Amino acid sequence: METTVVPIGQSLKAKNAAIARENRERFHAKRLLVLNVLSSPGAGKTALLERTLTDLLPRVRGGVIVGDLATDNDAQRLRRSGAPAVQITTGVLCHLEAAMVARACEQLDLDALDLLLIENVGNLVCPATYDLGEDIRVVLFSVTEGEDKPLKYPVVFKNADIVVISKIDMADAAAFEREMALANIRRIAPQATVFENSVRTGVGLQEWYDFLVSRARRHANG
Amino acid sequence: METTVVPIGQSLKAKNAAIARENRERFHAKRLLVLNVLSSPGAGKTALLERTLTDLLPRVRGGVIVGDLATDNDAQRLRRSGAPAVQITTGVLCHLEAAMVARACEQLDLDALDLLLIENVGNLVCPATYDLGEDIRVVLFSVTEGEDKPLKYPVVFKNADIVVISKIDMADAAAFEREMALANIRRIAPQATVFENSVRTGVGLQEWYDFLVSRARRHANG
Repeated sequence: METTVVPIGQSLKAKNAAIARENRERFHAKRLLVLNVLSSPGAGKTALLERTLTDLLPRVRGGVIVGDLATDNDAQRLRRSGAPAVQITTGVLCHLEAAMVARACEQLDLDALDLLLIENVGNLVCPATYDLGEDIRVVLFSVTEGEDKPLKYPVVFKNADIVVISKIDMADAAAFEREMALANIRRIAPQATVFENSVRTGVGLQEWYDFLVSRARRHANG
Repeated sequence: METTVVPIGQSLKAKNAAIARENRERFHAKRLLVLNVLSSPGAGKTALLERTLTDLLPRVRGGVIVGDLATDNDAQRLRRSGAPAVQITTGVLCHLEAAMVARACEQLDLDALDLLLIENVGNLVCPATYDLGEDIRVVLFSVTEGEDKPLKYPVVFKNADIVVISKIDMADAAAFEREMALANIRRIAPQATVFENSVRTGVGLQEWYDFLVSRARRHANG
């Protein structure tokens, strides 16, 4: 009897890719714009998503799926925006997978949404290679993390559609060198659109909102 | 013929544990104090280690092994301290393993060192369950990452001997709630000694140095 050996990593990735395709077809059929938001822990994903959901209502009806190893703190925070939020806890797993997103969607009324934000587990490595079925992949890093993040985590940045530089109100306190950071992004992720903003002061949020509203409208019109 | 199926994850972990034991025995025989330093990207590991190595010389002869997905930027930075530094690049792997550390040690003269600092890949998830053979596991998080990090990344904090709260010069700018952070550390990691410091201003570094010097002396005296 012949035995075919399939590398486990490859097989799991192929299964994830298949489920991600199903997710994507389902989201497109519902004319839903879906973002997969990645960053290291504490870069400000939840803060940006909470404020985005709040400020875009009622123009854009948003919902959110949020992944963490433990606690549902983030879903609780995100619900303060008035948007529905589903928490996924992954235990020791360092990324979300397409199947988890599919299951979480069962707890959401997708027909009542224009925009679905998926906040991934705080990690710049593992989530980079897992497609969830999103339209847009957003990678966020804060001015306090240093200008070299794109060089040191190239895989996640190479796959980004959007790079958000967050907490720009703290740029001076962090001695953040903006031009160097932008040059590093351009070098690793020339394909990415860059937004720079601060949830605390509101600086730069309007451009981000305009982009989301315009893309959500385009999706809604098929 | 009987076949024993060993789960791949378990088998790799057992292999890592065996090599970590070998590393530990070798480090002990050389009376070398070894730290494994973990944090999310941009929390300030390299800055703390660079300044520590510089300030402790010549009292303590330090060396460093540093892991990153890509680039040898950190080894270059760390060499400015005058200490020998070996870079490990892991590609897509989100943590260091004991075998990588064993190989990196071949590039260091361990007999000429009192202290070996291992800077792990920037990640609060994957490195948590890989023993490298260290004496002390240090988990670092910065005031800009938020007070809730111990709750959201419990595995890494539960295995910490030391927790360092970094960048405390930015505590006000980040509206950091110190008491809440300390309570969260106590809840998840009651075993850990906590240091709070700033590499930029130097605040809190003396306690950290005193601890390292005292532990390095104890090791040197067997």
